[in-house]
Amino acid sequence: MSLKSEIFEQPAVLEQLLAHQSDQVERIAAEIRRIAPAYVFLAARGTSDNAGRYANYLWGSHNGLPVALATPSLFTYYAAPPKLQGALVVGVSQSGQSPDIVSVLAEGRRQGCPTLAITNAPASPLAQAADFVIDIQAGIEAAVAATKTYTAELMAIAMLSAALLGDPVKQASLAQIPAWARQALELDERIQRSAERYRYMSHCVVIGRGYNYATAFEWSLKMKELSYVVAEPYSSADFQHGPIAMVDRGFPVMAVAPGGKVYRDVLGMLRQLRRVHQAELLIISDQAEALEQAQSPLPLPADIPEWLTPLAAIIPAQLFAYHLTRVKGYDTESPRTIHKVTETH
Amino acid sequence: MSLKSEIFEQPAVLEQLLAHQSDQVERIAAEIRRIAPAYVFLAARGTSDNAGRYANYLWGSHNGLPVALATPSLFTYYAAPPKLQGALVVGVSQSGQSPDIVSVLAEGRRQGCPTLAITNAPASPLAQAADFVIDIQAGIEAAVAATKTYTAELMAIAMLSAALLGDPVKQASLAQIPAWARQALELDERIQRSAERYRYMSHCVVIGRGYNYATAFEWSLKMKELSYVVAEPYSSADFQHGPIAMVDRGFPVMAVAPGGKVYRDVLGMLRQLRRVHQAELLIISDQAEALEQAQSPLPLPADIPEWLTPLAAIIPAQLFAYHLTRVKGYDTESPRTIHKVTETH
Repeated sequence: MSLKSEIFEQPAVLEQLLAHQSDQVERIAAEIRRIAPAYVFLAARGTSDNAGRYANYLWGSHNGLPVALATPSLFTYYAAPPKLQGALVVGVSQSGQSPDIVSVLAEGRRQGCPTLAITNAPASPLAQAADFVIDIQAGIEAAVAATKTYTAELMAIAMLSAALLGDPVKQASLAQIPAWARQALELDERIQRSAERYRYMSHCVVIGRGYNYATAFEWSLKMKELSYVVAEPYSSADFQHGPIAMVDRGFPVMAVAPGGKVYRDVLGMLRQLRRVHQAELLIISDQAEALEQAQSPLPLPADIPEWLTPLAAIIPAQLFAYHLTRVKGYDTESPRTIHKVTETH
Repeated sequence: MSLKSEIFEQPAVLEQLLAHQSDQVERIAAEIRRIAPAYVFLAARGTSDNAGRYANYLWGSHNGLPVALATPSLFTYYAAPPKLQGALVVGVSQSGQSPDIVSVLAEGRRQGCPTLAITNAPASPLAQAADFVIDIQAGIEAAVAATKTYTAELMAIAMLSAALLGDPVKQASLAQIPAWARQALELDERIQRSAERYRYMSHCVVIGRGYNYATAFEWSLKMKELSYVVAEPYSSADFQHGPIAMVDRGFPVMAVAPGGKVYRDVLGMLRQLRRVHQAELLIISDQAEALEQAQSPLPLPADIPEWLTPLAAIIPAQLFAYHLTRVKGYDTESPRTIHKVTETH
């Protein structure tokens, strides 16, 4: 199994997950509705933390559930875990092995909170520490850079949101995700050609907002892990609060800008970056106006509801990181220094 | 008033704040103890958001209060604010003007939650939307890059933590902060010399963990705003989850590594960065072993309790950003493109 084959497995993985875990997700949703937590306390690291950022926006806007992203070192180093009364404690981890994430769930259970694990390893310590488990069923992920487990985690988060609402329109939209993922994969050759242009790029920023704040983080993480580019993620709002100062002529800016409620605002900033700063823009969007700003436009399938765009938008981003790595002459299968399970405490 | 004079004003600002706001903070702490919120929902942007990261660790570890950092766009663009029952809603903003931060407090009040503003503008819309106000009394901040309002916000957060605990040892430590800040300012000439070495640095990463995760973010923000260096902040744990792959020989890594509970772990990573990756290290620490790893060591005053190190550690970081900006030939008073109040919605 190679990184590229795992990227291409995603439509099938998402289809499987929907087919085999919908009933389990409905059962968990019924329990959570009964418990009615005041908020969610969510622990994750790396790629799974980026999935957590999606949960932060989605569960906040669709389900009225505030999400606190945990700072796991409070549970391990400082031995002073906060009081979690009222919280649903959630751990997201591909391997289910990270001791710091497991310790957050164990503490939640000790304090009597309901606990949920979203993991690819239903027999892992994380799953054992949880009352409820969503098995993302992505199969073995052999590549060091996570791809299919990220989209599967997003899918689990989206399925739980729709199940909590009991909204048949939203559930019908979920069924279309595998087809959108397939369409996004059709960009592969185009992205391979686009990547050439960035052969000597050493750093860039990656912009996303709202639901796609998560996409900006995950895209930049893939570029850092694989192609060793210093890629810094931002929401467009935070970027305007200072860091935009560093953008001058030719500075590369990657952006995820699908249609939706934050689109006009992100578009305004992309226009400013192009016209005022003369930045270099690579843009993933389903909107013609946004794509027109870009030297490298990457069109998304049209008509994806905004809340599900992160599941499609990350796919061209993964492909870009993959091809950029090859163009730069690095090994996509054995990146330097990183390991599949990092034992942070 | 110049940026440098505002950096040097910090000991006096912190002294004033302690002298004039301690009673008000005690009153607010008594109210918060009575209300006993389940968690804190905190909204801020830019520099103030970095102060919020400090609150996240400090109120979590010392006061048992989980902190959810708000995603203000949920309140403005998506018009779907989460249910905030059980939350103390906190807004942190120098100007008290940012519409998105004000809207979070207004929504908190609408939902019947207690609201707290930490601001330099006690007549601002943010303060008007709050039940409780801590006026950081930093005086007019003329420089575009915020410095004294950042340390004053940290001080307000630390004062509230100590008041909630009613701990006289911790309150006595607060009184020493101005002296530690003065000691940190004595590094000025040394930092001016150190900055020469980084004349042609275009990008770097900035590492901090625990309480000093905030310092890493704020340090990198100052470098981006002023010196246009692409500086990406990380916790050492997240950095090991992938991004460390991009560090090769000579790659510049800035680190904040004072003694304390996370120190051994951060030190282990600094050693690895030096020996395995042959990184270039600039390190702010009070520990000889950490400083020995660095090409550019910046010693902090000894014996600062770990929870208060962010108030001293940011000062050499501010001075470094200031001198780096001058060494690179940029204007420290009028950075490109950024404005004091950013009207993000």
